Amino acid sequence: MSDAEDANARHAEKMKKIKAARDRMMATKTEHKGLIMVHTGNGKGKSSSGFGMIMRCIGHGMPCAVVQFIKGNWVTGEKTILRERFADECRFFVSGEGFTWETQDRERDIAAAQNGWKIAKEQILDPEIEFVLLDEINIALRYDYLDIDEVVDFLLTQKPEMTHVCLTGRNAKPELIEAADLVTEMKLTKHPFKDGIVAQKGTEY
Amino acid sequence: MSDAEDANARHAEKMKKIKAARDRMMATKTEHKGLIMVHTGNGKGKSSSGFGMIMRCIGHGMPCAVVQFIKGNWVTGEKTILRERFADECRFFVSGEGFTWETQDRERDIAAAQNGWKIAKEQILDPEIEFVLLDEINIALRYDYLDIDEVVDFLLTQKPEMTHVCLTGRNAKPELIEAADLVTEMKLTKHPFKDGIVAQKGTEY
Repeated sequence: MSDAEDANARHAEKMKKIKAARDRMMATKTEHKGLIMVHTGNGKGKSSSGFGMIMRCIGHGMPCAVVQFIKGNWVTGEKTILRERFADECRFFVSGEGFTWETQDRERDIAAAQNGWKIAKEQILDPEIEFVLLDEINIALRYDYLDIDEVVDFLLTQKPEMTHVCLTGRNAKPELIEAADLVTEMKLTKHPFKDGIVAQKGTEY
Repeated sequence: MSDAEDANARHAEKMKKIKAARDRMMATKTEHKGLIMVHTGNGKGKSSSGFGMIMRCIGHGMPCAVVQFIKGNWVTGEKTILRERFADECRFFVSGEGFTWETQDRERDIAAAQNGWKIAKEQILDPEIEFVLLDEINIALRYDYLDIDEVVDFLLTQKPEMTHVCLTGRNAKPELIEAADLVTEMKLTKHPFKDGIVAQKGTEY
């Protein structure tokens, strides 16, 4: 047997074992369930992976909804594409008017957040909708514009069983992490802002 | 001054300071540059945030391309939507035939990875394309189906200056992390697989 043949044979054997172990593991995963998902941390990808899941849902013909809590007045690629191309497949709502240090008006921010949460509840309860993205809701929760206990209680007791809800934003509250089925921390390892690179179209918004 | 007015005044003062600090910081960020981005780690969101950025690019009218290195034979929401709805805006290529433990054929996996890398280079060099997603390329690099030095050398010396490239997958090699402008580690904090939940449409694929 040549060295290359030998390497291939060893590889095939190893992969066979991995596949068998994986098949056994996956056979135990049979349950379908609507998930409470949280994307938090100081890294990139919290919102964009939420929008990636929206894209997957649209691809599978699953009606979905987005409520954006904070980035209201920005022209974002995701807002443009959802409003212009997928108005039938995905409902898109904006509650916030920018990050809170832009508005500098607490009362208005609170009213916007409360309005967003009202819309969010309607969308989650709507039996037609299978996936709801609550983009940057963690910012509204962090500043106590929304009551964390009310949000967690609603998700745990009123969310329809098969509906997925994804909540994004830094500094997710411990109560939300406790209630969630799936939590991912997007951790910043290296970031070009420090080298004077501006937030850019496509990658950041 | 009532308590509420007092809280609002304090909030406005604090937000004013944050905004001033942020404006000063952002004023130093003026450079535009095509980024080498890496999404790695054991958590969710590596591929989906790549596809979220693809969505942003399409929303901004930036021509883009995807090369999927591993998930070739799956029916994924992102593949469906990109092929059926955005064939003009985003080129979509598949090189892999499933995860490597599914194929169990090292020679075929190597050939698929090499073919994917050939397509990837063409797309990155194409002056029309502004963003290239190399989905799950880290798996091909990890198994040495692709030479890490060749990939890093190409990205650092031949990638057009303004082109963004995003490389996803677990276990990113240290050489790639060193070369990247922006690295995010998606860290698993809590996952429903452990409770018997299967990978589900929309959220996982």
